[in-house]
Amino acid sequence: MVIRDKIFSTITDVFKRHGAVTIDTPVFELREVLTGKYGEDSKLIYDLADQGGEICSLRYDLTVPFARWLAMNPSIQSIKRYHIAKVYRRDQPAMTKGRMREFYQCDFDIAGTYDPMLPDAEILRITTEILDSLNMGSYTIKINHRKILDGLFQVCGVPTDKIRSISSAVDKLDKATWEDVRKEMTEEKGLDPEVADKIGEYVLKKGGRELLDELLKDETLTSNESFASGLKDMGLLFDYLEVLRVMPKLSFDLSLARGLDYYTGIIYEVVTEASAPPAGKDAKLRRAPKSDDPDADRSNDDSIGIGSIAAGGRYDELVGMFANSAKGRVPCVGISFGVDRIFSIIKARMTGEIRGNEVEVYVMAFGGKGFTGLLKERMEICRILWDADIKAEFMYKNKPKLSQQFTGAEKNGVPFAVVFGEDELKEGKVKIKEMGLPEGHPEKNGVDVRIDSLVVEIRKRLAQEAGTSGIEGELEMVALEGEKAPE
Amino acid sequence: MVIRDKIFSTITDVFKRHGAVTIDTPVFELREVLTGKYGEDSKLIYDLADQGGEICSLRYDLTVPFARWLAMNPSIQSIKRYHIAKVYRRDQPAMTKGRMREFYQCDFDIAGTYDPMLPDAEILRITTEILDSLNMGSYTIKINHRKILDGLFQVCGVPTDKIRSISSAVDKLDKATWEDVRKEMTEEKGLDPEVADKIGEYVLKKGGRELLDELLKDETLTSNESFASGLKDMGLLFDYLEVLRVMPKLSFDLSLARGLDYYTGIIYEVVTEASAPPAGKDAKLRRAPKSDDPDADRSNDDSIGIGSIAAGGRYDELVGMFANSAKGRVPCVGISFGVDRIFSIIKARMTGEIRGNEVEVYVMAFGGKGFTGLLKERMEICRILWDADIKAEFMYKNKPKLSQQFTGAEKNGVPFAVVFGEDELKEGKVKIKEMGLPEGHPEKNGVDVRIDSLVVEIRKRLAQEAGTSGIEGELEMVALEGEKAPE
Repeated sequence: MVIRDKIFSTITDVFKRHGAVTIDTPVFELREVLTGKYGEDSKLIYDLADQGGEICSLRYDLTVPFARWLAMNPSIQSIKRYHIAKVYRRDQPAMTKGRMREFYQCDFDIAGTYDPMLPDAEILRITTEILDSLNMGSYTIKINHRKILDGLFQVCGVPTDKIRSISSAVDKLDKATWEDVRKEMTEEKGLDPEVADKIGEYVLKKGGRELLDELLKDETLTSNESFASGLKDMGLLFDYLEVLRVMPKLSFDLSLARGLDYYTGIIYEVVTEASAPPAGKDAKLRRAPKSDDPDADRSNDDSIGIGSIAAGGRYDELVGMFANSAKGRVPCVGISFGVDRIFSIIKARMTGEIRGNEVEVYVMAFGGKGFTGLLKERMEICRILWDADIKAEFMYKNKPKLSQQFTGAEKNGVPFAVVFGEDELKEGKVKIKEMGLPEGHPEKNGVDVRIDSLVVEIRKRLAQEAGTSGIEGELEMVALEGEKAPE
Repeated sequence: MVIRDKIFSTITDVFKRHGAVTIDTPVFELREVLTGKYGEDSKLIYDLADQGGEICSLRYDLTVPFARWLAMNPSIQSIKRYHIAKVYRRDQPAMTKGRMREFYQCDFDIAGTYDPMLPDAEILRITTEILDSLNMGSYTIKINHRKILDGLFQVCGVPTDKIRSISSAVDKLDKATWEDVRKEMTEEKGLDPEVADKIGEYVLKKGGRELLDELLKDETLTSNESFASGLKDMGLLFDYLEVLRVMPKLSFDLSLARGLDYYTGIIYEVVTEASAPPAGKDAKLRRAPKSDDPDADRSNDDSIGIGSIAAGGRYDELVGMFANSAKGRVPCVGISFGVDRIFSIIKARMTGEIRGNEVEVYVMAFGGKGFTGLLKERMEICRILWDADIKAEFMYKNKPKLSQQFTGAEKNGVPFAVVFGEDELKEGKVKIKEMGLPEGHPEKNGVDVRIDSLVVEIRKRLAQEAGTSGIEGELEMVALEGEKAPE
C-alpha cells in the first residue's frame, strides 16, 4: 500500500510539473459508449444491473471515457489531463465462476490542435521523467508511426483489407521469431509469401536517427505519401527529443504496431529489462492466475502490452466518434502507465523490509519505579511535532514499557525516536535517538536537545536522511543492527 | 478539479502526519455484505448485472468495506487507515429515470484495542488539523456518547424497544424545534408525554467541561451504569483534548445522536457557519436536484448529516459482524469528511477566478522581423526548469506572438513568465517577469537574470509567493491589472 501510494505521488508530481490537471470521469458509462471500441475484448466489459434508468457498464479503460468527456464538452478545445483510477474487466468470463478484475491505470493525455509533434515530444519527456523519478533503471522507449507502417505495407503490396491483421502479426515480433510471424501471415492470413518477405526486409530494423536517415534514402518507400508523411513527423520529433534529452532512451522500431485500432500517428511502448517477457511459447499465455490480494502482481493489463510498463500514441479520430459537431473533434496524444507492473518491479528490487507507514518520529517516555507513563507529556510533544508538520506517533497506552515503544517504532521502520523521562523534562530537554545506529556509534545513546529547539533539530536530521535515499530508501526500513532498548 | 485535488492533498498530508496508510478496498462487495447494514436506505444500493459468478453490488460507503476487510485479515489487529474514494448510490430510485450518483467520501479510521479514548482524541485532533489547513474558518465539533444517550433515555423511562427511534427524533433538534420533536416522540412514536418532558430537560443542554461537571453532580443520572461509563469516557477525552488544544472547538451536545446503528461510543459531527442548514420546514428536503457537472454541489451525502462537513464515532461491533473468530473483532473509531460540501464552501468563498492548473513559469520568446520562434530554445529553458522540479510550460507553436504567449499564461493564472529574445540569449540571459504587477512597479518590465542562475532566482520568488498565500491564494489567479504584453 505504501509503495503504490509512493508511485502515485511520484507520477502525479511529474504530471503537475508539466501543467496537467486531473479530470475525474465517472466509473460508469452508457453501455453504448463502450460498445464496439475494444474489438473481441468487449466480452470483458462489466455491466450494471438494470434497476430502472439508463443502461450502464463499468469503464474498461480511461481513454474512451476521456474522449467521450471531451466530445461532450466542446468548449474545452485543449487540455493536459491526467487520471489515476481503476478500470474494470470481467475475469475469465468464459468460466462459470466469473470474477471482476479491477486494476489501476494511470493515463496522461494532451488534447488540442497544435503545431506538429510538440505535445508528442513532451509526453515522451514526461515518460522519462517519471521512469527516472521511480528509479526504474534501464529502459527503452520503442517508437513507430502508424503512417510509416501503413505506407510500408502498401509499398510491399499488402492488400488494404489485410493491413490491420498483418499489422497485428508484425506486432508479435517482440515475442515471436520472424519465422513464426511469417507463417502466421502467409498460412493463417493468406498473404503472398513474396509480400511477406518484402515486409521482413524492413520490420526487423530498429535503431536511432541513423535508421531514419537510411529510410529517407529509400526512394521506393519515400515515394509513398503515407510513409513520407510519417517519416517527416518522426524527423521533427527526433529534433525535439534531442533538445529534451530523450533520444538516448529511444529505439525506432519498425515492428512496433500496437493493437488498438484508434491510433493515427506515433505509437510507443516502454520496455525495461525487468519486464522482458519469457521467450518461447510461454509468452503466449496472456493471462496468469489471479489473486484476491490487492498487492498481487496484476500486471496482465492487456492494454499496455506484454512485458511493457507504459504504452500509448496519437489518436486524432477517437473524440470525433462521440462528437455531434466538427468542433468536438479534438486531436489527442496520450500514454498509459502500467502501475501494477511498475509496482511489481519496484517491489521485487527492494532488499529490505518495507516500511509500514511514513512516520518520522516515535515519541516515547520511560521511568523507574512509580513511572506514571507521562502520557500527556508524550501527547504534548507529538502536538508540537504535528504543528510543525512532522509525522509523529506515540503509543496508545497509559504506562507502556520502553521496550514496547521501541518495538512500536521498529515495526514501522520509524527513523527517529524522541525519548524522555521525568529528569529530562525538568530540564526542558528530550533525547533524539536515531534508530538503527550500530553499537559504538557516538550517538548510539541519543543526543539531548532543548524542547524549544526540538523541531529545528528533527528537521535538520530529516533533511539529511532525505538527501541520501531514493525511492527504495524512503520505503525501506532502516537496518536495525541488534537495536536493544534500555529498560 | 484543481480545488478538489488541493483538498485531497491537504487532507492526505494530515493523515500521513499521524502515521496513517491508505488501504484500497474494492469498489464492489458481495451483495450479502452490504445487505442489512443501511436500514431503509438499502434501496439506494447499486447492483452489478449477473453475468455469471458472484453477485456483487457497488460500495455504498467506505466503512462497511473497511470493516469487512479487517474481519478477513485477522492478522491485522491494529491500523490507522485513510481512504479517499467514490461511493455509489442510486439516485431517485423510485422514479423511472433512475441515475447513479457517485461522490467522494474521505474516511479516516483507527482500528485496534488500546487504552481508552486515546485514538478517539487523536481523531478529533486530526479533524482540527484538517479543517484549519483548509482555512475552513469557524467550526464546531459537536460531541456526545451513545452510552450517555442510552443511559439518559433509560433514566427518563423510555422503553428499551423505543430507544433507537426516540434517539433519532432527538437527533433532529439541530434543525427542528423542541415542540416539533416532542410532538414526533409523543404523537408519532407513542411516548408518554411525561417521559418526553424529562428528556427535554436534558437534551437541550450543550456546553463544555462545565456541562460535564454539572452532569457528574446529578446522582439520578450517574447511578445509571451506561450513563456513568459514558461520562467517564467523556471526562478522559476532555483531558486529552485539552493537551491537544482541541477543546476550544468542542461542544458537548446532548441532542447529538447520529443515525447509524453501529456506533457504540463517542459520536461527533462538525458544523460550520457556512454549512448551517436553512431553518424551518425546508430543512426537511434532504435531496436537492442533481447536476451532471462533476463540480456541482453534491453535498447531499446523507451519511454525513445535513449541514455538517464531517461526522463519525466509535464502532466497536461492526468488524465482528463479518468475523469468523473472536480474533477478528477489532474495535474501531473513525470519521468521514464530506469533501463535496467542503469543496462547495471553499469555492463559494473564493473571490477571484480559479487557476486552471498549477504551472509556475510560462516560458516565452519574442523577436522582430524574421523572428524564428526560438522554439528549441523555449524547450531547452523548460527542460532546465523541469529538471529542477519547477512547473513550467511553453506554447506548442513554432512562431507564437508574444501577446498569444502572455494570454496563454494569463488564462491559467501562471505567476511568472520567463521571456527572452535573440539578444538576451546571446548574453546568456533571460528576463523573469512577475505577472500582474501594477503599472509603475519597478519590476513591471521584468528582471534580467543569467540562465545559469535562473533556477535559483525562480525558486526564491516562488518561496516568497508561497509564504504569503493560503489555500485560496494558491488556487486563485493573480489579479491582472491591465497587463499589456509588449509586441
